[in-house]
Amino acid sequence: MSASKNRVGTGSKQTFDLQGFLESRTALVNRALDRSLPPATAKPATIHKAMRYSLFAGGKRMRPALCLAAAAACGGRETDALPLACAVECIHTYSLVHDDLPAMDDDDLRRGQPTCHKKFGEALAILAGDALLTMAFEVLGHGYLADTAIECVRVLAREAGLAGMVGGQADDLAWETEDGPRRLEELESLHVRKTGALIRASLRLGVLAAGEAALKVPVPSSLHLQILFDEYGRRLGLAFQITDDLLDVEGTADDVGKRVQKDAGRGKLTYPGLLGVAESRRRAERLCREACEVLSPLGPAAHRLAELVRYVVERDR
Amino acid sequence: MSASKNRVGTGSKQTFDLQGFLESRTALVNRALDRSLPPATAKPATIHKAMRYSLFAGGKRMRPALCLAAAAACGGRETDALPLACAVECIHTYSLVHDDLPAMDDDDLRRGQPTCHKKFGEALAILAGDALLTMAFEVLGHGYLADTAIECVRVLAREAGLAGMVGGQADDLAWETEDGPRRLEELESLHVRKTGALIRASLRLGVLAAGEAALKVPVPSSLHLQILFDEYGRRLGLAFQITDDLLDVEGTADDVGKRVQKDAGRGKLTYPGLLGVAESRRRAERLCREACEVLSPLGPAAHRLAELVRYVVERDR
Repeated sequence: MSASKNRVGTGSKQTFDLQGFLESRTALVNRALDRSLPPATAKPATIHKAMRYSLFAGGKRMRPALCLAAAAACGGRETDALPLACAVECIHTYSLVHDDLPAMDDDDLRRGQPTCHKKFGEALAILAGDALLTMAFEVLGHGYLADTAIECVRVLAREAGLAGMVGGQADDLAWETEDGPRRLEELESLHVRKTGALIRASLRLGVLAAGEAALKVPVPSSLHLQILFDEYGRRLGLAFQITDDLLDVEGTADDVGKRVQKDAGRGKLTYPGLLGVAESRRRAERLCREACEVLSPLGPAAHRLAELVRYVVERDR
Repeated sequence: MSASKNRVGTGSKQTFDLQGFLESRTALVNRALDRSLPPATAKPATIHKAMRYSLFAGGKRMRPALCLAAAAACGGRETDALPLACAVECIHTYSLVHDDLPAMDDDDLRRGQPTCHKKFGEALAILAGDALLTMAFEVLGHGYLADTAIECVRVLAREAGLAGMVGGQADDLAWETEDGPRRLEELESLHVRKTGALIRASLRLGVLAAGEAALKVPVPSSLHLQILFDEYGRRLGLAFQITDDLLDVEGTADDVGKRVQKDAGRGKLTYPGLLGVAESRRRAERLCREACEVLSPLGPAAHRLAELVRYVVERDR
């Protein structure tokens, strides 16, 4: 399959700068993650190897990029948001490691490589996930003023927990055995938590990192600012999920780097399954346009976030 | 087996008050945990049921009791430490749920009841553990001054993570397949992290909850106070582990409420295996005496903590 099949055609030609931004921020985040982790030679060696294997398996670093871009869009410095970006990536990676386990999605392949439990065994994959989840909160505990730090803990714990990501995963699990979603609203409610919550957390943490600079943004209040970012994030997250579903239907494992057509094989409801491929693509396009529009009050400062939305729906893996 | 077989004979007859303390604090902690969790009717129902099943499975609430008693011993109010005690118990419960999984210890029985994965399936047990771990940090985010709250996050994340509990578990796992500990120092280094770290966290959080009251305790500085509690906790934790090992050797599943003689069956090094039963018991007694002595500068305020050490080594499950 050609990558362009999944492109939703926003008409943007500004992909060069975005690629540069993503690559440089991936390098930045990777260096910060490397410093946050105990050295590779630390004992017990096995769990450190497993954590590093999964953290540095070539992830797209979309959530960290959103966190850094949100901080910058609010007039903050990206470096101030870097530890928060790392914390979010630790949470994201733990969720992938646990999701891939035989008892959960039972996936052997992730980003074109053996999944953590295939490489290190199930027990270590469970522990490595637990360690990454715990480390996310350890990272938040250092380097910020106490008021900011504890607000970051609140945001991350809520969005990663029962009200957010884990709750969405539990729903997804329940729907595999019981009555799954049949309507678009139910499907969206699932994704808003399962993938959307951590995207929302990334953006909110970025805004928190901007600190007082965010007070100068041309919106009526910090609540308005939060609402704008939440609404941007919700649309970005749903567009991301529709793109994932489209890749699952149309991609090959070689292109996508993980097992494809697994959703349809399990009878899981997907956007293409509910709306068809063409309508799903149109929906992703609309969400993409709306996400950019929502942030328009921020002016040019939000251009990077607009480009990130395009990247999310135009990606081929 | 008679329960008294495991008693190490501290000569204390003051068990009545301690029982009363433990029962009333268990009730207090259970009510607080009940309030911290989303209601039992919350959706998705399955994960809430699984979390509540494991949290309210009749745990001894030793760590919460230590947290509350540490706060009181420093002149603080127990109610101020209650959310911290709940957070520690969430971490403890998540670690049991994940430890019992087939890929880990593969235990069917816990506190005389089917383990979480036997009752709800492996996938839900993994998620319920993740949710409990995340909830611990959510609980810390509310109800304290920011400086105190973020220090609590730091303590809990460090002690529950790679440098503490999870690191100890990873070592334990590595030692099952590779070279296990052969010397007492190695065995102790394992337990100081695997069970000791969360006990240390419970005590430190209790001291933090006492706030300014802790400054009036008759020790030279807050660092000295922390050292005393750490040294008390280290001895308590080791005495606890020796007692666990003795119960594993001498108990029956009916008495103990979980599978016994599993350590010997796996060739795991234990205190009785290394030192023999009689010497292990003597060692627990000495640790118990030393733990009480360490806190003697605190005077009568520390009596409850001294009694808790006795309970730990005299318990029969």
